[in-house]
Amino acid sequence: MSRFLNDRLASLEAYTPGEQPQDKAYIKLNTNESPFPPSKSVLSAVNRAAAKRLRLYCDPECKVLTNSLAKLYGVESKNIFLSNGSDDILNFAFMAYGDMGAIFPDITYGFYKVFAELHGVNTEIIPLCDDFSIDSDAFMGKNKLIVIANPNAPTGMALALDTIEEIVKSNPDGVVLIDEAYVDFGGESCVNLTKKYDNLLCVGTFSKSRSMAGARLGFAVASDALISDLEKIKYSTNPYNINTLTQLAGAAAVRDNDYYMNNCQKIIKNREYTVNELEKLGFTVLPSSANFVFAKSDKISGKELYLKLKEKGVLIRHFEKDRIKDFNRITIGSAKEMRIFIQKTKEILGEF
Amino acid sequence: MSRFLNDRLASLEAYTPGEQPQDKAYIKLNTNESPFPPSKSVLSAVNRAAAKRLRLYCDPECKVLTNSLAKLYGVESKNIFLSNGSDDILNFAFMAYGDMGAIFPDITYGFYKVFAELHGVNTEIIPLCDDFSIDSDAFMGKNKLIVIANPNAPTGMALALDTIEEIVKSNPDGVVLIDEAYVDFGGESCVNLTKKYDNLLCVGTFSKSRSMAGARLGFAVASDALISDLEKIKYSTNPYNINTLTQLAGAAAVRDNDYYMNNCQKIIKNREYTVNELEKLGFTVLPSSANFVFAKSDKISGKELYLKLKEKGVLIRHFEKDRIKDFNRITIGSAKEMRIFIQKTKEILGEF
Repeated sequence: MSRFLNDRLASLEAYTPGEQPQDKAYIKLNTNESPFPPSKSVLSAVNRAAAKRLRLYCDPECKVLTNSLAKLYGVESKNIFLSNGSDDILNFAFMAYGDMGAIFPDITYGFYKVFAELHGVNTEIIPLCDDFSIDSDAFMGKNKLIVIANPNAPTGMALALDTIEEIVKSNPDGVVLIDEAYVDFGGESCVNLTKKYDNLLCVGTFSKSRSMAGARLGFAVASDALISDLEKIKYSTNPYNINTLTQLAGAAAVRDNDYYMNNCQKIIKNREYTVNELEKLGFTVLPSSANFVFAKSDKISGKELYLKLKEKGVLIRHFEKDRIKDFNRITIGSAKEMRIFIQKTKEILGEF
Repeated sequence: MSRFLNDRLASLEAYTPGEQPQDKAYIKLNTNESPFPPSKSVLSAVNRAAAKRLRLYCDPECKVLTNSLAKLYGVESKNIFLSNGSDDILNFAFMAYGDMGAIFPDITYGFYKVFAELHGVNTEIIPLCDDFSIDSDAFMGKNKLIVIANPNAPTGMALALDTIEEIVKSNPDGVVLIDEAYVDFGGESCVNLTKKYDNLLCVGTFSKSRSMAGARLGFAVASDALISDLEKIKYSTNPYNINTLTQLAGAAAVRDNDYYMNNCQKIIKNREYTVNELEKLGFTVLPSSANFVFAKSDKISGKELYLKLKEKGVLIRHFEKDRIKDFNRITIGSAKEMRIFIQKTKEILGEF
């Protein structure tokens, strides 16, 4: 840190990026990426864009991609906002709507807390219920910035759409941000509710179901007033933050929606296999609507299982946080990857 | 704007993106892009990255690219920071170092004012001298955040490296940000001074000399303490903001540095041709060290020339700002583009 840094930033706790070890080739079940490659037309869109468009500035309005997404979700283009990954949109939302305070669960995506600190937003933290579900009653009538990941991470558990609507209705003077990063793997999207409620901000990403984590593309669907707030912040910070390659890859991915939704069905099938096998081994597995499962064993601590799997070349995600330290988050990869994961877990438990 | 937006953002004046008309194919001399395509190995790096890496998160530390740039500039990796375009870095600098106020010229890159407003930074604005050079004496001993584009935009005029060093030395308790977006076209870079002064932040971009405006890649060279401040902000907002395609394209561009520096020599030659021809037509042309010239005619107003050239399919940049409204900023394109620009200008002036 330099002696010039402003006080508020100096006291900020910096985020540490996730583990990406380079010492050997791992089966990577630790960061919820897709095991499937982007569709062929995404690759050719990237190649064409590089050759013809890289020297020119990208379209700050992202018109082609915005229109494709609007069509896919049955909304108008003015109801779509695009930015450099959904983290970017979460950051903007805390900046824009945090003055009255924010409220989110104790166990959820770790970046919400970082954004709240960055923008000096007061937070009210709601503990998950004993079964690790979100205590939806605690979010009623708050009229603050409400932030809920649905399905939640790292639990994978989803709230029903009815419950989301109740929360939105009971907070007419606060923005309700629903982070749907994992919705395509079994959750119910609130996209259609954005037509009815001007305080609902539905946030999505191309990083999970659309196999584009390396391209950085997030989107929001909301009332035109909320979208214009986000546009204003983007145009005041970095209007060109989605590059040409990503814009055209994204538009191609939307055209190939069937390919990606079919991949989601494969993930759901692999998830069912993984849950069954883990339960046979005596694991407790939370009911998941996401492309990962959250599981604990009575026979081995979360940390030990994580470390032993890493030795055997399989990376899963361990959180050193009191309430969940016995669990691990396991990304659902390809059928083959999940068979290897189960086999290595059996070896570690001495049941192989 | 929604009824939920925080007060400070509600009163912010939004930036309007530059003109990108789609009604016909223009000769585009309005946004300082390169007329040359990226090198072949940049294109193959993008193609490989799309096929093999798009589904995986990008490296938040950008190790490959950071190391290449460090080698190119003869500094250590800890002295290099990368982000989503140089605008992103300027934004972070105003956020990090603006508490004591910021100081920059009245006529310069328009985004400095937007960032100052966004972060509530007090500004002291120094008028350019009568000859449109930067009044360097006015920046001495201020100990604020000093922001100077060198060469300056839209004038194209550069300060000598000695003068930059005097400014840096006389402001030991303020950060001096030198925005070198255009330095490769004839300016003197302050990169080497960053080894000597812990308060000097040198900012560069791949958008101009490296033909990658559509890829969004900016960098900073500075003391490790300043770099760690910028890293902290990046990791607290959007650690993955440079995607895999751009990271690998950037690294390939650094390897092909000779190709790009050779292109800069071609631009300098085309600039000399353009200046000569404009002067023959009676234009006043400011001495440019950039990939654009700033010129005015006594025979036609800046706005009229801009509009008539647009009718004839040539886009240049007009600024509706009092002191410079008789001027236009003309990007230096290919030799052919500049011949057409001169020919159309002659037609408009009735001298053809």
